[in-house]
Amino acid sequence: MMHNPETTIAAPATSPGGAISVIRLSGPDSVRIAGAIFTPRQQGFDILKAEGYTVHYGDITDKGEILDEVLVTVFRVPHSYTGEDSVEISCHASSFIQQKIMELLINNGASPARPGEFTQRAFLNGRMDLSQAEAVADLIASESEAAHRLAIHQMRGGFSKDIRTLREELLHFASLVELELDFSEEDVEFADRTRLKELVKKVQGITDSLAESFQFGNAIKNGIPVAIVGKPNAGKSTLLNSILRDERAIVSEIPGTTRDAIEDTATIDGILYRFIDTAGLRETSDLIETLGIRKTYQKIQQATVVLLLTEATDSPEVILESVKAIANQISGTGKKLILVVNKTDLAGKTHLENIREALCPENEDNCIFMSALSDEDVAQLKLLLGKKIEIERLTETSSVVTNIRHYDALTKTSESLKRVLEGLETMVPEDLIAMDIRQAIHWLGEITGEITTDDILTNIFKNFCIGK
Amino acid sequence: MMHNPETTIAAPATSPGGAISVIRLSGPDSVRIAGAIFTPRQQGFDILKAEGYTVHYGDITDKGEILDEVLVTVFRVPHSYTGEDSVEISCHASSFIQQKIMELLINNGASPARPGEFTQRAFLNGRMDLSQAEAVADLIASESEAAHRLAIHQMRGGFSKDIRTLREELLHFASLVELELDFSEEDVEFADRTRLKELVKKVQGITDSLAESFQFGNAIKNGIPVAIVGKPNAGKSTLLNSILRDERAIVSEIPGTTRDAIEDTATIDGILYRFIDTAGLRETSDLIETLGIRKTYQKIQQATVVLLLTEATDSPEVILESVKAIANQISGTGKKLILVVNKTDLAGKTHLENIREALCPENEDNCIFMSALSDEDVAQLKLLLGKKIEIERLTETSSVVTNIRHYDALTKTSESLKRVLEGLETMVPEDLIAMDIRQAIHWLGEITGEITTDDILTNIFKNFCIGK
Repeated sequence: MMHNPETTIAAPATSPGGAISVIRLSGPDSVRIAGAIFTPRQQGFDILKAEGYTVHYGDITDKGEILDEVLVTVFRVPHSYTGEDSVEISCHASSFIQQKIMELLINNGASPARPGEFTQRAFLNGRMDLSQAEAVADLIASESEAAHRLAIHQMRGGFSKDIRTLREELLHFASLVELELDFSEEDVEFADRTRLKELVKKVQGITDSLAESFQFGNAIKNGIPVAIVGKPNAGKSTLLNSILRDERAIVSEIPGTTRDAIEDTATIDGILYRFIDTAGLRETSDLIETLGIRKTYQKIQQATVVLLLTEATDSPEVILESVKAIANQISGTGKKLILVVNKTDLAGKTHLENIREALCPENEDNCIFMSALSDEDVAQLKLLLGKKIEIERLTETSSVVTNIRHYDALTKTSESLKRVLEGLETMVPEDLIAMDIRQAIHWLGEITGEITTDDILTNIFKNFCIGK
Repeated sequence: MMHNPETTIAAPATSPGGAISVIRLSGPDSVRIAGAIFTPRQQGFDILKAEGYTVHYGDITDKGEILDEVLVTVFRVPHSYTGEDSVEISCHASSFIQQKIMELLINNGASPARPGEFTQRAFLNGRMDLSQAEAVADLIASESEAAHRLAIHQMRGGFSKDIRTLREELLHFASLVELELDFSEEDVEFADRTRLKELVKKVQGITDSLAESFQFGNAIKNGIPVAIVGKPNAGKSTLLNSILRDERAIVSEIPGTTRDAIEDTATIDGILYRFIDTAGLRETSDLIETLGIRKTYQKIQQATVVLLLTEATDSPEVILESVKAIANQISGTGKKLILVVNKTDLAGKTHLENIREALCPENEDNCIFMSALSDEDVAQLKLLLGKKIEIERLTETSSVVTNIRHYDALTKTSESLKRVLEGLETMVPEDLIAMDIRQAIHWLGEITGEITTDDILTNIFKNFCIGK
């Protein structure tokens, strides 16, 4: 995936269908190539002299025949998305016209753009850093308010600035330590060890907390996986239908996420949830036995939240046994359990109180008595779900990582910094400490793209759509 | 479907997916409404003062939070698609962002646009006549070069101008004839009967030939239906696969066309063909018997061209019998028959000559000897197909009608004019002749929209997509 700034690339930027299509050009020949196939209506106007941020009405012609009436928007270097001369052609949304215009552009010297190549150029031209470029794809893919908020925040800088600042501070110390190496015979100390230790601890604190936020960020981005488990007659389908009734989300395919096991999705209070199909559990009637089988365990493995559905008509002992079985399964995994005692409309008051007494002193916040048929009860369950996934963390958007590449780099930074701290404690030779600092600097630089390789770029941009 | 020019309408103009989305506004408040949610990056710039055909970069904000970074293009009355003040907001292609921007626009006073409402406004503001407006939808739906050519031609005026001129000439005569009625006591003749007759004949000739072109135009627009019929072992699937190999078209659903019986589509030399599934024919092995059954007849009914597939290994008599059976079925229907003698690679030279002798003196242009396995032979068949559907008529795009509403109006015009001519011959009272002329004028006016009703407009624009 080599970048040649001399080439001019072209691609459709809108998907087929709708009323209009937009085709994008970027590169030094954008205006010339567009001008070769475009005749402005304004008599005597020369598109080559068009200023940036102006729109021109006219015809695309092919061998003297008019192909379409279009609008052509001109952007001039560096004031465009890519930082290059760019053109957007807005034509009628016919796949025939779009294809024909692409053909004409290519015949006149444009190259078809690779996925993400416009954004890659924006990055290479310094219009955005790498984590901002990655956020563009996230922004487009965002299906919920929460995912959107994280993406736009990252696109507008997010934690990049902090990372850059920390990296520069580390760089400063690294050079001081390296300077000491040059003067190693003389036993000087340019880098203040106490301040270095403080800095390393500060950076480590920040990278750790960012890395720690990844699980949450990733769930927000791809949807919180929720497993609804319970006996066949506990009302799983009814509950799922009640939850989905008004909020069923139409979700597009997200590359890299397995959706085989996903039954349905819903956006509740701006958060996307993915309900995991526990159909496998429906086959056997004995929950306890079922829970023992490997398949169930795998289903639950995928979930962040497990909704355990029980029946209010059962005895407190039976319910408690179900809870214990599930609790055993998920203990130590960090998964959240919500016990749903369903069908309260079918149970007597005393019986319900008995259940509550048996269960709830220890389950205050993890337990809901409800009927899946009551809208009010379902709304309560949704609130509880939001509470479980700590929705309030969304206000600290600046410190949420959603990208696995960033997570990896942050983890590696933290490991390097840990070695630096250990080195400082145990009087390890300066050159090893310097190497570990350099490594931390390297990983931090990979996040924002100050350090990058063709491989990294290829991996990032290949998942973009064409035209972005 | 009442039009209120005081309202400002908004709708997405692109379909979900892709890299960017465009949202359109049109109406007197377009710029104010867009300005209420848009903050330009250019400090101190007031979007309300933006000139037409200018683009502005900035942020869409919602309660102080940035929703997206967008481009806003301003168009000023009357230099826009609709002829009104208009705005296009180009945002990132996330359905969440698109939905949110629509919400914000509506909260600030925009109404959601109905399907086709932008084009309807363009029509009502005199930016295009009705047949041009209809062509916009055809242009967007066009899947082949031929359909596209007919649509763009119509959008740019097509036969509208001719129709308008003819209508005005008729109007002139109508008023003269009506003037005579005012002076009926005095036996004057303002309208020259000979010239009136000439004019009526001329108009009738043009409307007849336009109406006659509809079958062709409609087939070009929706695809030429081709039935491949023949005995089960004649090689229908092989032939279809050979035809489709390089040209299989991915065709979107066209409203109003039944596709149940359609097996596959292909664009050959810019023409869309729809191959009709004759699976029903495959069940029985006796073609002659099969052809007798009602089901086969229905399949063939849908076709414009029937490809009769026979085997070169059969005797000339058997082949001739198949031809006769099909010829009986389609005689008088105007359907074109192509006899394909397949599997020539399996038959001896003398045998082939015998077949040719038995069939071809009378079938010179309707018959092809080939092997469905030979690319060259299949290319020849494609050429023959194009010849059969009179591809060359496409050069006279100005005289091809593709719209059933136009076809109806043209037929009715022709009927009225026929009555005018009969009236002139048989000395029918002037007032009846005047009425028939008026009726012809009415129908011609319906094509271009000089005469229109809310019903007509509703019917036309309801089939448009939203945002156009």
